[in-house]
Amino acid sequence: MRDVFQQELHEVQERLVEIAELVEVSIENAVTAFTKSDVGVAEDVIENDVRIDELTLALDELAINILALQQPVARDLRIVVSALRISSSLERMGDMAEHIAQLARYRFPERAVPKGLKSTFAEMGRLDVEIARSLTRLLRTQDIALANQIRDEDDKVDELHASVFDKLLSERWKGEATATVDATLASRYHERFADHAVSIAKKVQYLATGDWAGADDVHA
Amino acid sequence: MRDVFQQELHEVQERLVEIAELVEVSIENAVTAFTKSDVGVAEDVIENDVRIDELTLALDELAINILALQQPVARDLRIVVSALRISSSLERMGDMAEHIAQLARYRFPERAVPKGLKSTFAEMGRLDVEIARSLTRLLRTQDIALANQIRDEDDKVDELHASVFDKLLSERWKGEATATVDATLASRYHERFADHAVSIAKKVQYLATGDWAGADDVHA
Repeated sequence: MRDVFQQELHEVQERLVEIAELVEVSIENAVTAFTKSDVGVAEDVIENDVRIDELTLALDELAINILALQQPVARDLRIVVSALRISSSLERMGDMAEHIAQLARYRFPERAVPKGLKSTFAEMGRLDVEIARSLTRLLRTQDIALANQIRDEDDKVDELHASVFDKLLSERWKGEATATVDATLASRYHERFADHAVSIAKKVQYLATGDWAGADDVHA
Repeated sequence: MRDVFQQELHEVQERLVEIAELVEVSIENAVTAFTKSDVGVAEDVIENDVRIDELTLALDELAINILALQQPVARDLRIVVSALRISSSLERMGDMAEHIAQLARYRFPERAVPKGLKSTFAEMGRLDVEIARSLTRLLRTQDIALANQIRDEDDKVDELHASVFDKLLSERWKGEATATVDATLASRYHERFADHAVSIAKKVQYLATGDWAGADDVHA
C-alpha cells in the first residue's frame, strides 16, 4: 500500500513537471509573439493553453483520488494538497502567457510593444522565461536554492513593473491610448506570471522545511 | 465520529460565509472609495483585507485538519477540497477590492474614475456588489438559482469591460495617460472580481449536482 502511495506521489510530481514544461514553452512563445509581433507563435500559445488546462484538470483528479483512496496524513497530506495548489498556479501562469500572446494578436500587423518600452519589456520577458525555467527545475529537483533565485528574479520583475507605470504617468510619455492600454496590461500580466511562480516556490520550500505558514502566504 | 465530521463541515461552510461577508463589505467600500474618491473608506478596505487573509489561512488549516483526521471520501472529500478552492477565490476577490480601493488612494485628491467612464464604472461597481451579495447568499443557502444569477451578472460585467476598451481605443478618447492606465486597471479588477465569483458559483453548483468537470472548469 505504501509503495503504491509513493509511486502515486512520484506520478503527481512528474505531472507537475510536465505542466511546468508546457508553461515554459508558453511563456517563451508568448514573449516572442509579443516582442516580435509573430501571430503564428501567438496561436501556438493559445493552443498550448488548452493542453495545460487539460493536464491540470487530470492532475487534480489524480490528487483527489489519492486523497480518497490513500487517505494520507501529515506530510504526505500536505504534499497532495500543495500539488492541487501548485497545479492551480501553473494553470494561471499559462493563462498569463496566453494573455500576453493575445496582445500581439490584437495589434497585428502593428507592434504590440509600445515605443519607448521595448527594452523594459524585453527584460521583463527574459526574466519571466528565466523564472519559468527555474520553476521547472525546482519542481524536478526540489533544489531550494532555485526558490530563492525565483524570488530574486520576481523582485526585478516588480521593479520593472513599477518603472512601466512611472514612464506611462510621466509628462514625457507621448504614447497613444492604445500603447498605454497595451503597456498597462502587458506589464500586469508579466508581473502576475512571476507572482504565481513565487507562490509555487514558497510551497515547494515549505514541503522541504515544514514551514507551512510561510508557504501558504496568500500575498505571494 | 460522523457527527463530529458533519459539525466540522458545517463549521467550514459557516466560515466561508463569514469570509464572503467580509468580501462583500470590501467591494462595497472599494466601489465607494473609487467612485467617490473617499480615501478613508479606501483605508478600511486595505485593513479589511488583512482580516480576510487571516480567516482564509485559518479556514485552510481547518480543512486540512479535517482531511487528516476525518479522512473523508466521495462527496464529503469533494466538499472539503472545494472549500479550499472557494476560500482561495474569496481571498482573490478581497485582493481585487483592495486593488480598486488603492486606485482611489493613488489618485487622491483627484478623482480616480476617468471622465467619460463614470456611468460605466458606476454600473460595473453596482454589479460587482450585487455579485458579492448573491455569492454570500449562495454559500449560505446553496440555492442554485443564485449561481445562474451570478453568471448572468458576470456576463454584464464582461460586456462593460469590453466597452471600456472600445472607448479607450476609439478616436474620440481624449483622456490623459493617467486616466487610460486607471481605466484599464480598474476595469480588469472589476472583471476579475466577477470571474472569481463565477468560479465559486460553479463549485457550489457541482456540489449540488455532482458535475465535477464543469465545476473544475479552469476558465471560470
